[in-house]
Amino acid sequence: MFLFEVLAKEGEARAGRLVTPHGSIETPSFVAVGTQGTVKAVSVDDLRKIGNQVIITNAYHLHLQPGEDLIERMGGLHRFMSWEGPLMTDSGGFQIFSHGAGKEHGVGKIAPIFPEETDRGGHFRSKKGKPLVKVDEDGVEFVSYLDGSRHRFTPERVMDIDRKLGADIIFVLDECTSPLHDYHYTRAAMERTHRWVVRALAEFERTSDNTQALFGIVQGGAYGDLRRESATFLAEQGFDGYAIGGSLGRSKKEMHQVLEWTIPLLLQDRPRHLLGIGEIEDIFEVVKRGIDLFDCVAPTRMARTGTLFVKEADRFRIHILNAEFKDDPRPIGEDCNCYTCCNYSRAYLRHLFVARELSGIRLATIHNLYFLESLMRQIRAAIREGRFAVLASEWFSKVPLL
Amino acid sequence: MFLFEVLAKEGEARAGRLVTPHGSIETPSFVAVGTQGTVKAVSVDDLRKIGNQVIITNAYHLHLQPGEDLIERMGGLHRFMSWEGPLMTDSGGFQIFSHGAGKEHGVGKIAPIFPEETDRGGHFRSKKGKPLVKVDEDGVEFVSYLDGSRHRFTPERVMDIDRKLGADIIFVLDECTSPLHDYHYTRAAMERTHRWVVRALAEFERTSDNTQALFGIVQGGAYGDLRRESATFLAEQGFDGYAIGGSLGRSKKEMHQVLEWTIPLLLQDRPRHLLGIGEIEDIFEVVKRGIDLFDCVAPTRMARTGTLFVKEADRFRIHILNAEFKDDPRPIGEDCNCYTCCNYSRAYLRHLFVARELSGIRLATIHNLYFLESLMRQIRAAIREGRFAVLASEWFSKVPLL
Repeated sequence: MFLFEVLAKEGEARAGRLVTPHGSIETPSFVAVGTQGTVKAVSVDDLRKIGNQVIITNAYHLHLQPGEDLIERMGGLHRFMSWEGPLMTDSGGFQIFSHGAGKEHGVGKIAPIFPEETDRGGHFRSKKGKPLVKVDEDGVEFVSYLDGSRHRFTPERVMDIDRKLGADIIFVLDECTSPLHDYHYTRAAMERTHRWVVRALAEFERTSDNTQALFGIVQGGAYGDLRRESATFLAEQGFDGYAIGGSLGRSKKEMHQVLEWTIPLLLQDRPRHLLGIGEIEDIFEVVKRGIDLFDCVAPTRMARTGTLFVKEADRFRIHILNAEFKDDPRPIGEDCNCYTCCNYSRAYLRHLFVARELSGIRLATIHNLYFLESLMRQIRAAIREGRFAVLASEWFSKVPLL
Repeated sequence: MFLFEVLAKEGEARAGRLVTPHGSIETPSFVAVGTQGTVKAVSVDDLRKIGNQVIITNAYHLHLQPGEDLIERMGGLHRFMSWEGPLMTDSGGFQIFSHGAGKEHGVGKIAPIFPEETDRGGHFRSKKGKPLVKVDEDGVEFVSYLDGSRHRFTPERVMDIDRKLGADIIFVLDECTSPLHDYHYTRAAMERTHRWVVRALAEFERTSDNTQALFGIVQGGAYGDLRRESATFLAEQGFDGYAIGGSLGRSKKEMHQVLEWTIPLLLQDRPRHLLGIGEIEDIFEVVKRGIDLFDCVAPTRMARTGTLFVKEADRFRIHILNAEFKDDPRPIGEDCNCYTCCNYSRAYLRHLFVARELSGIRLATIHNLYFLESLMRQIRAAIREGRFAVLASEWFSKVPLL
């Protein structure tokens, strides 16, 4: 188990430090999403300069392309990606949802921009279609969206993949249910996931060399008794940390409730990861409820469409293609010290997006990731100094909290 | 006029130094193409680390988007792009060809990947269509390919645009003829271009503040007497340097002939720029004939499709998507010190291209540009030490010279 220290608390919000074999993560921390073994549009060198602490990749995607055996032969995922810092690997539970019940029910997180990118929670309508996934007691069978080949994931198989990939923090295989699943199905799926959890843990212990930490994933949809039952069950199993996954309900309020049901029942000295949340408004809300780690594709995905984080009197985002930025000589963020803001104007960045230049996408991604890292540094300092609530009210004095 | 010193010669090949208000260019030098105010997929920081000395942008493209007035208001092109080094602006003569006679004749340099990218010489068949350009004695009228708006370029107007952009080295407006134009048309167009040259020079002198150098462009197609006449005429006008433009014939041999007709007639103490050439095989041939500067989209364009420069026993390029690189743990170039080769394997780069990750395009571009810079450093050193011919034979000992 990796050392995790809680250094300060303010209410349920906490500042801590998680020590992995590839370096420490100061928490609460944003986890950059590098699904396919790269954070989209940037290099690891960019991430180091941004101050990014940890990347989450995806066992499901890396299994399909280029394959865990190849990555193992290339010296493991850290070496393959050339990232020497802490690394996580999500299990693929959300992809089971996304290509299975999600497809059947016509629900997805957000309207897909790049189909390979999906994540948990906050579901939006997506195109209905034939599911590519079949879940049974043993595990899950699925068809590759790349080439139609058949694959089977079991709790043990995912551990095997994760061992070969070699990320510092790995997650058990879970079944993400859809917000359209009823209580009955959600309970049955949760109970099956719990049986998978026991098998995953046994396999993890059988193969452990103390270089990887295993996180359990709390399921139970938006049902209070299921979430409590799942959190209690996972706490009983131990685990090095916990993720809160699955359907987080249909509103921000329901998502907050899921955290309030779940977090008090987990082992309090272990880190808590919220899968798939990262909007500015959400960050304060989830940190306030005791989340230590969270990942989200939104900052990088938004960047690719020209939506950029700002801290202005009345907004947290601008869309760089808007005409108002055509001859705006200011950087994106006037106080921002990222590479993009130190070198380029809004007018130039807008020109790159209008001209469809790839360099614009990278510059926008660097800004959004830096903005989040900078926000998280402020949040950590505020918790340590007992002024997290003050910082939150300062950020939301003019922008209405959604 | 900027200082240009020839430091060493070997046959007609020469090593020199061109001093601009934004720094020196050691020659012979590759000029990176930044048509729309960015070298595609990389940042100026990348270019500095690569050792890139100079960028060429395009007055035609920047006039259409975002416009020279906007760039002037943003502090000029250097500041807009955040590039403090030497900068050139091509006039748009090739675009007149490409969207005019080139379109009518169905000839273009290479099969277009990104339509906004075009360059001179080495024409390939392209889709025929209605020309968007009309040339008359006064200048050229054209329709924007972006929004259908009408524009007029004259020799004086291009000088005005170039003054607003503020690049260090600017080019006169010329008419690029098609390789399918006959002798009669090529002569008439050349003579008109010469009349434009006189007007451009007068306008340049009228508005000069000694911060910009003006290069003339030799025309005349693949006709020896026209090329000689054009070179002689341009030498009589003075000029700070010369570009060799227009149709360079239908074969490498014809292109070499154009250089042999032209170069001896130009003022020998001025730099010579070849527009639109940059394959490894070409570089040795054109440097051997006295070229000091050359630009080409090939290195960056090839990178975007996964074609990478190598120096191997029997080849100068690999296509990273080929199966042979699937589990190749070596860097692209085993002796290459570029960021990509210092950090990533061929297997990883192939994975990024298979997975269609944008970060792969940047890493490939960095490698190709670095490879060329490294080659040019070797060439400059070889000329200074009188072993350019030896270096050339070493490079081509196994790879057949095309």
